[in-house]
Amino acid sequence: MKKILMLISDGFEEIEALGTVDILRRCGIEVSLVSVTGSFEIHSSRNIKVIADNKLEEINVDSSLWDAVILPGGQPNADNLRDNDKVVETVKDFYKAGKLTCAICAAPIVFEKAGIIRDKKVTSYPGCLVNESDCIFTAKSVEQDGNIITANGPASACDFAFEIAKALGLSHKAENVRKGMLF
Amino acid sequence: MKKILMLISDGFEEIEALGTVDILRRCGIEVSLVSVTGSFEIHSSRNIKVIADNKLEEINVDSSLWDAVILPGGQPNADNLRDNDKVVETVKDFYKAGKLTCAICAAPIVFEKAGIIRDKKVTSYPGCLVNESDCIFTAKSVEQDGNIITANGPASACDFAFEIAKALGLSHKAENVRKGMLF
Repeated sequence: MKKILMLISDGFEEIEALGTVDILRRCGIEVSLVSVTGSFEIHSSRNIKVIADNKLEEINVDSSLWDAVILPGGQPNADNLRDNDKVVETVKDFYKAGKLTCAICAAPIVFEKAGIIRDKKVTSYPGCLVNESDCIFTAKSVEQDGNIITANGPASACDFAFEIAKALGLSHKAENVRKGMLF
Repeated sequence: MKKILMLISDGFEEIEALGTVDILRRCGIEVSLVSVTGSFEIHSSRNIKVIADNKLEEINVDSSLWDAVILPGGQPNADNLRDNDKVVETVKDFYKAGKLTCAICAAPIVFEKAGIIRDKKVTSYPGCLVNESDCIFTAKSVEQDGNIITANGPASACDFAFEIAKALGLSHKAENVRKGMLF
């Protein structure tokens, strides 16, 4: 079974985080929703209260144990993730190990800080990156360059999730899930 | 400010419930996520743990205090809602009072039990209703007939939410939210 680490904090975007978990779990992937705040209880951008599966300080996030890491957007979640040294180090570790490294909406700012998107094809929510010109900013809804997958906002969250499932070799399953959800 | 009651139990579909709350709160609507199970903590179909805002037995759900009621799908959530007498009575009360009465995916089975969709245009997840022929089953992604709005599944959840916002007189706001979410 494939294993995905999703890192979240207060202010996460609901569809980007929980819609993505929904779809990936439907695809048979084990997704761990991991709080980086020190608390299990996390409040979304629109104040939905969620209990995370784990806390960052209590699980092993070494990339050798996982198939992918996902960072949802929403504010102040994206800023929180960018300003958390362990999150940035985890992103660098996954990227260097060739594991899928995925972010949506404002969360590609974490990739920018981690220094992994220079000269890479990337998308994000419009106007989020400090230096769009340092990467190849394509403004597509979902973009993939090697082991980096990015997406631009809530409307693309489901396509982002299906793209991640496909990149993990689950194209057939993803297609069945898509049909079952009436996409 | 408009006020919406969303009733949930274990097994709710994540995007249908939480994506809808996300969009409606972005539209400036007060949405109360109300557990019908007796517990604040509710587990979704794909085991995301959510803390509800209220419990059904602790708030006043008289239709005079609200603008709409929404029932998300997912199983066993839809069956739980159908088998809960207070939920069925609440649906009847909202419908008779002319308040917006909304359900998605499998949740229109609650409307069927409440006897409010006979000869009405309705949609649902394929094959959910016991007697599709008692209503005018249109199989559209989102359907409205008078004060009843129904939708067919997770892929239609965002359109369902925008349709509810529009039906509450918030078309302009809904259009801005839609653009901001990059739909």
